[in-house]
Amino acid sequence: MEREGFDFQIDRIISIVRDSDAKLVGLQFPEGFKRRSPGIAARVEEETGTSVIISGNPCFGACDLDVALLDRVDIMFHFGHAQLDDNTLSGKVYFIETRSSAAISEVVENAISELRGQKIGLITTVQHVHKLEDACRILEADGKECVIGTGDSKIAYPGQVLGCNFSAARSEECDEYLYIGSGEFHPLGVSLSTGKRVLVADPFVNEIREVDPSRILKQRSVVIAKSLDVNVFGIVVSSKPGQERLELAGRLKDIALKHGKQAHILSMDLVTPDQLLQFKVDAFVNTACPRLAIDEVGRFHAPMLTPQEFEIVLGEREWDNPVFDEITGE
Amino acid sequence: MEREGFDFQIDRIISIVRDSDAKLVGLQFPEGFKRRSPGIAARVEEETGTSVIISGNPCFGACDLDVALLDRVDIMFHFGHAQLDDNTLSGKVYFIETRSSAAISEVVENAISELRGQKIGLITTVQHVHKLEDACRILEADGKECVIGTGDSKIAYPGQVLGCNFSAARSEECDEYLYIGSGEFHPLGVSLSTGKRVLVADPFVNEIREVDPSRILKQRSVVIAKSLDVNVFGIVVSSKPGQERLELAGRLKDIALKHGKQAHILSMDLVTPDQLLQFKVDAFVNTACPRLAIDEVGRFHAPMLTPQEFEIVLGEREWDNPVFDEITGE
Repeated sequence: MEREGFDFQIDRIISIVRDSDAKLVGLQFPEGFKRRSPGIAARVEEETGTSVIISGNPCFGACDLDVALLDRVDIMFHFGHAQLDDNTLSGKVYFIETRSSAAISEVVENAISELRGQKIGLITTVQHVHKLEDACRILEADGKECVIGTGDSKIAYPGQVLGCNFSAARSEECDEYLYIGSGEFHPLGVSLSTGKRVLVADPFVNEIREVDPSRILKQRSVVIAKSLDVNVFGIVVSSKPGQERLELAGRLKDIALKHGKQAHILSMDLVTPDQLLQFKVDAFVNTACPRLAIDEVGRFHAPMLTPQEFEIVLGEREWDNPVFDEITGE
Repeated sequence: MEREGFDFQIDRIISIVRDSDAKLVGLQFPEGFKRRSPGIAARVEEETGTSVIISGNPCFGACDLDVALLDRVDIMFHFGHAQLDDNTLSGKVYFIETRSSAAISEVVENAISELRGQKIGLITTVQHVHKLEDACRILEADGKECVIGTGDSKIAYPGQVLGCNFSAARSEECDEYLYIGSGEFHPLGVSLSTGKRVLVADPFVNEIREVDPSRILKQRSVVIAKSLDVNVFGIVVSSKPGQERLELAGRLKDIALKHGKQAHILSMDLVTPDQLLQFKVDAFVNTACPRLAIDEVGRFHAPMLTPQEFEIVLGEREWDNPVFDEITGE
């Protein structure tokens, strides 16, 4: 945790709670931060005299706001994610972005020799977004050009990508990308969404690596191939506020019917392989969190297609360039 | 399925949908019935021209109404459970109780020789509740007396028990109980809640057996013993409409604080051992579905107490007769 230096902004939270007349405070953490919740809750209660309720639900993004908890508390702090355009569900929610204080200059300097292009697109998650200008200066000092795209309305900061939105990467022309951060999925998404080379510079372990999308592309081909002759589809919709794409699901169902297929819309909060076991369909189509189809490939009892792959299966879209599923904004 | 003869009332559902001006219909099934959902959805769509959305969420009772789905559809059918007093959340919900047509006379006749008492309390789930009068006549023809308790406001029919409410068993004096139905938990709950002998007559497999609560009682002693010296408690609250006991959780937290313990309230939709792994506490207290602490004993990474056991641990209640946790009504 030391090296990562995440800022939970406890003093700011205490001051916001004190300035409010809140009596009941909600705290929501993504999975990786949940172990910090008892300590933070105890501190907030001690210093403000309020009562805290911690959200125990799985949380994988700002899309995943705990609306049941929000209904019950006077004020809620959501950790680890920046606000999305469409989840200002309430003035009661504060997004604590848990920015990292980890130094990035060393790993960015180390990355320079691995870069092949001249014009570099800089991307990262919200944890390092305040370091992109520094990274830019380092690259420019070495004679590179540097662009930081602004992204669509789902994106709070220039250069920021989500697991389901790579618009900031696409919004500026460049030769290749340098992703600053840890994790596999975000840079992979940029690679698949842009078709360009992506280099990862991980400041936590001081490591440079190139993203290789070939394994995922093969997996997607298998999923598509397995779904070509099936008849009954389950179209999965999430009820989470930032993931709900019921309209898309309805459109996909209409296409299925037009092609003489059966399709059933399944509405769920958390989508898991276990839970889908109950539904005897030949293939699933995922309109919930786009990561599901990719990250949990092979764990569902039937092929799990993205919406775009479903269109390929039904012959409504060419099977040439893969299109990575995203939840985009304005 | 043949022998069980569950009535899904498809014709009634179609007629209700036709008589409404619903365009979007929701269907919610408990786990055991979910595999029937695609067939029933297809039939409803075909005959009414509406669109159906199936709830994919886990569902273990009428307490578990899918409120997110309810928000989106014009009308919703909830299968497998009778209405609870407090979940008339909306005039849009119809409870399809899936009564069983299985004959009960043979198994009840077979049970007579195993009964020891004179005055027999008859209990069952909603699936067989319409057969209790028949069962009564069979017992009376053999010279037994027979009582069918009415239960509190959570209970829709005389003699009906839920996994979290045995008030119908307690409401009439009797020597012992005859439970008609399958499953382990309901008759076990009656045994623990009343302290009396419970005989199970299972009409699906034509089997008679006596409930033995001793294993569960031993398990509960172990859970209590393991929690006696711990300092940090996680008090679990469910956000499900029929399970939410936030007030109880708040009271338990106050008691913990009074005894110099730390306690954190964790609010969740579905409570699972996996999800609670994220929270590093010494013991949990469960105010959600009372079955959790019993059915999933040993699967949580820390002891999971019932509210009553928590009071025992803190010395606020005598450790003599175990009190089975229930969610009771008026």
